[in-house]
Amino acid sequence: MRIVQKYGGSSVATAERIRHVVSRIIMTRQAGHEVIVVVSAMGDTTDELIALAKQLAAEPDPRELDVLMSTGETQAAALVAIALKEQHVPAVSLMASQAGIRTTDRHRRALITAVHPERVVRELDAGKVCIITGFQGITEEGDITTIGRGGSDSSAVAVAVALKADRCEFYKDVEGILTADPRIVPQAQKLDVISHEEILELTTLGAQVLHPRAIELGQVYRMPLVVLPTFSMGSGTVIRALTDEERVMEQFNRVSGVVCERNVAKVTVVGVPDRPGVAYQIFKPLADAGINVDIIVQNVSRDGITDMSFTLATEDLPAARRLLEPVRGALGAAILDAATGFGKISIVGVGMQTHPGYAATMFGALRDAEINIQMITTSDIRITCLIDDRDVDTAVRTLHEAFIEQVAAAASA
Amino acid sequence: MRIVQKYGGSSVATAERIRHVVSRIIMTRQAGHEVIVVVSAMGDTTDELIALAKQLAAEPDPRELDVLMSTGETQAAALVAIALKEQHVPAVSLMASQAGIRTTDRHRRALITAVHPERVVRELDAGKVCIITGFQGITEEGDITTIGRGGSDSSAVAVAVALKADRCEFYKDVEGILTADPRIVPQAQKLDVISHEEILELTTLGAQVLHPRAIELGQVYRMPLVVLPTFSMGSGTVIRALTDEERVMEQFNRVSGVVCERNVAKVTVVGVPDRPGVAYQIFKPLADAGINVDIIVQNVSRDGITDMSFTLATEDLPAARRLLEPVRGALGAAILDAATGFGKISIVGVGMQTHPGYAATMFGALRDAEINIQMITTSDIRITCLIDDRDVDTAVRTLHEAFIEQVAAAASA
Repeated sequence: MRIVQKYGGSSVATAERIRHVVSRIIMTRQAGHEVIVVVSAMGDTTDELIALAKQLAAEPDPRELDVLMSTGETQAAALVAIALKEQHVPAVSLMASQAGIRTTDRHRRALITAVHPERVVRELDAGKVCIITGFQGITEEGDITTIGRGGSDSSAVAVAVALKADRCEFYKDVEGILTADPRIVPQAQKLDVISHEEILELTTLGAQVLHPRAIELGQVYRMPLVVLPTFSMGSGTVIRALTDEERVMEQFNRVSGVVCERNVAKVTVVGVPDRPGVAYQIFKPLADAGINVDIIVQNVSRDGITDMSFTLATEDLPAARRLLEPVRGALGAAILDAATGFGKISIVGVGMQTHPGYAATMFGALRDAEINIQMITTSDIRITCLIDDRDVDTAVRTLHEAFIEQVAAAASA
Repeated sequence: MRIVQKYGGSSVATAERIRHVVSRIIMTRQAGHEVIVVVSAMGDTTDELIALAKQLAAEPDPRELDVLMSTGETQAAALVAIALKEQHVPAVSLMASQAGIRTTDRHRRALITAVHPERVVRELDAGKVCIITGFQGITEEGDITTIGRGGSDSSAVAVAVALKADRCEFYKDVEGILTADPRIVPQAQKLDVISHEEILELTTLGAQVLHPRAIELGQVYRMPLVVLPTFSMGSGTVIRALTDEERVMEQFNRVSGVVCERNVAKVTVVGVPDRPGVAYQIFKPLADAGINVDIIVQNVSRDGITDMSFTLATEDLPAARRLLEPVRGALGAAILDAATGFGKISIVGVGMQTHPGYAATMFGALRDAEINIQMITTSDIRITCLIDDRDVDTAVRTLHEAFIEQVAAAASA
């Protein structure tokens, strides 16, 4: 197989850890695979370089900051190559310019536009391990860019796609992706397999492990992504496209994870006219101000008048109030009602698409736990409820037990 | 004028020093000049990177060590550009690959083969200050090389030559090049002007300030090199080709400097046959072993038999003895005589080419100081004597007084 392995900053933070990375690479080669490595900068290097730049300018020039930051990954790549060659493994470090990682010229947040892997292929054909710098790219003009925080994960997927790799592995400080936050649910289980779309919905569980951009890229190109523990031999979590058969099979007929979010505020515009354009009038100014609105519910209209409710982060509430007061006046709405102290709870699973009854089970479990549901929103593979913030932990544990622990127990029975 | 300014590692070691460099660059621009900057890595960065690599390999792979080390200059260039832009000076950092500095592929000690400055010219035409990474280059294949210790000086001269700059300035921790080591001669004076060939002969005075490769490059392409103090407004020392008029003019009819060398050993092969090939038999094995031989004297032959004497560094003496013992036997030479405890003293000046009498004055001054001369060797612009090591300091002071202080006093009288 052709395997891309991405090692994060903490995996290459010291000489000792680099030697450990090298032993993983050698193990993979000895299993008969071709290995391409993508590395981040060592430990806190990127932050240290930014701090240095900020001694010289409050807002350092983005082009030059990219040049500066890119040196972190270049150093890490060279050091891994040095350590590999010391073990008599043919290896070559390649910067983004050499690996052909082309990007837009929007510095600091460039987007990968293409990967031209001719040099990488030549080095692989010569039997070498290629160590490619993550996070960085190069413009048409030959200038260095960086592709934003978490970008190294995206680099790895882009390289894997361009090289038609069989899988892209991410070595992290975790055993894999879990079914819930273990600080809330001690029984949280490691997922063996999950689909790209599920992990994208499990934001708080997934995003801590793998950048959403990388997952989306994997989804679009159907590249299997594997989250593996750096410092143990665990099997990790495979993120991949599920087959049609799998989607209806029993083992996937389950909830993949339970996630929650806190510090949610709810706003209701009471008594707005039920006519086209009202939603636009309310949400356009919020969008322009960069305020993310989440659950939106419009009540059934009565006498041409309705209520519009939505949630947002508590920290955005003051700004939202200020923006909406004139809108309320223009709409002739009666009241702008705002309240804080809410939380969101979601279950995610592809099985929902083909198996009914998830919603009923979720609502029943919350009722049994005497948790009141304020608002509901759903997608194809997710059901989210707005509840009191103080009920969030109980709700996560209740739903994890109902959808994951009981199913696992039944399966093993 | 178009001016290349080279700043060494200590000149960019901290944010404060970088700001100082920026003020020098701005001053040069305000005087109406076009500025190209060549930088070394900040402070001890290169040594720290090498130390990191040595934690992973006793002898780190040279290609990868070059990639690693090159990041030091890249960081410095980006930081200087950031600091310039903060002062609203248009600027752009360019790595060797972007500045078109091509080298051979002999890693760690690559030789500059060409500079393709198209991008630099384009940026200069756009009114920008270009900050180019010293020390690094790029191969035909696009791999990073470094051009050896002191290479940043050579980078600067090569860039100056390719850009047809009017001068190449080197900002250093000294006021300029002195007529003697000030630890021996407190009256040592700063030279205002000196020729490339003189500074190359004044090895111990010149090499501490500017790398001989850089001086040679300047000599070949007749590029004026200016050594300037980073932290004062002194006028420094200009190294340039002297005109034919200058060479015979009174002000250049003087010794530029007095240099010495210690720990010199003398070897005499007594009683060798005076026939072709003998010198080759003696010196070939030494050259093969990398032993530098300096003053060579062959006595006048008597009855087809002669003595051959030469000097070398004391530390090389044991190896030389081992290599020469069989040669002595093969030549049927009587004795291999070796002695340590010598020093060399030299005066350097272009005036010697056109004005006789330097040698006589030198020998006379040494006699007056009761210093015995063991051996003599000369070039067009240098006279060197081998003397007792314990006489070296006195000899330097004596010759500096005779050739420099007295001439200066006469000139100002």
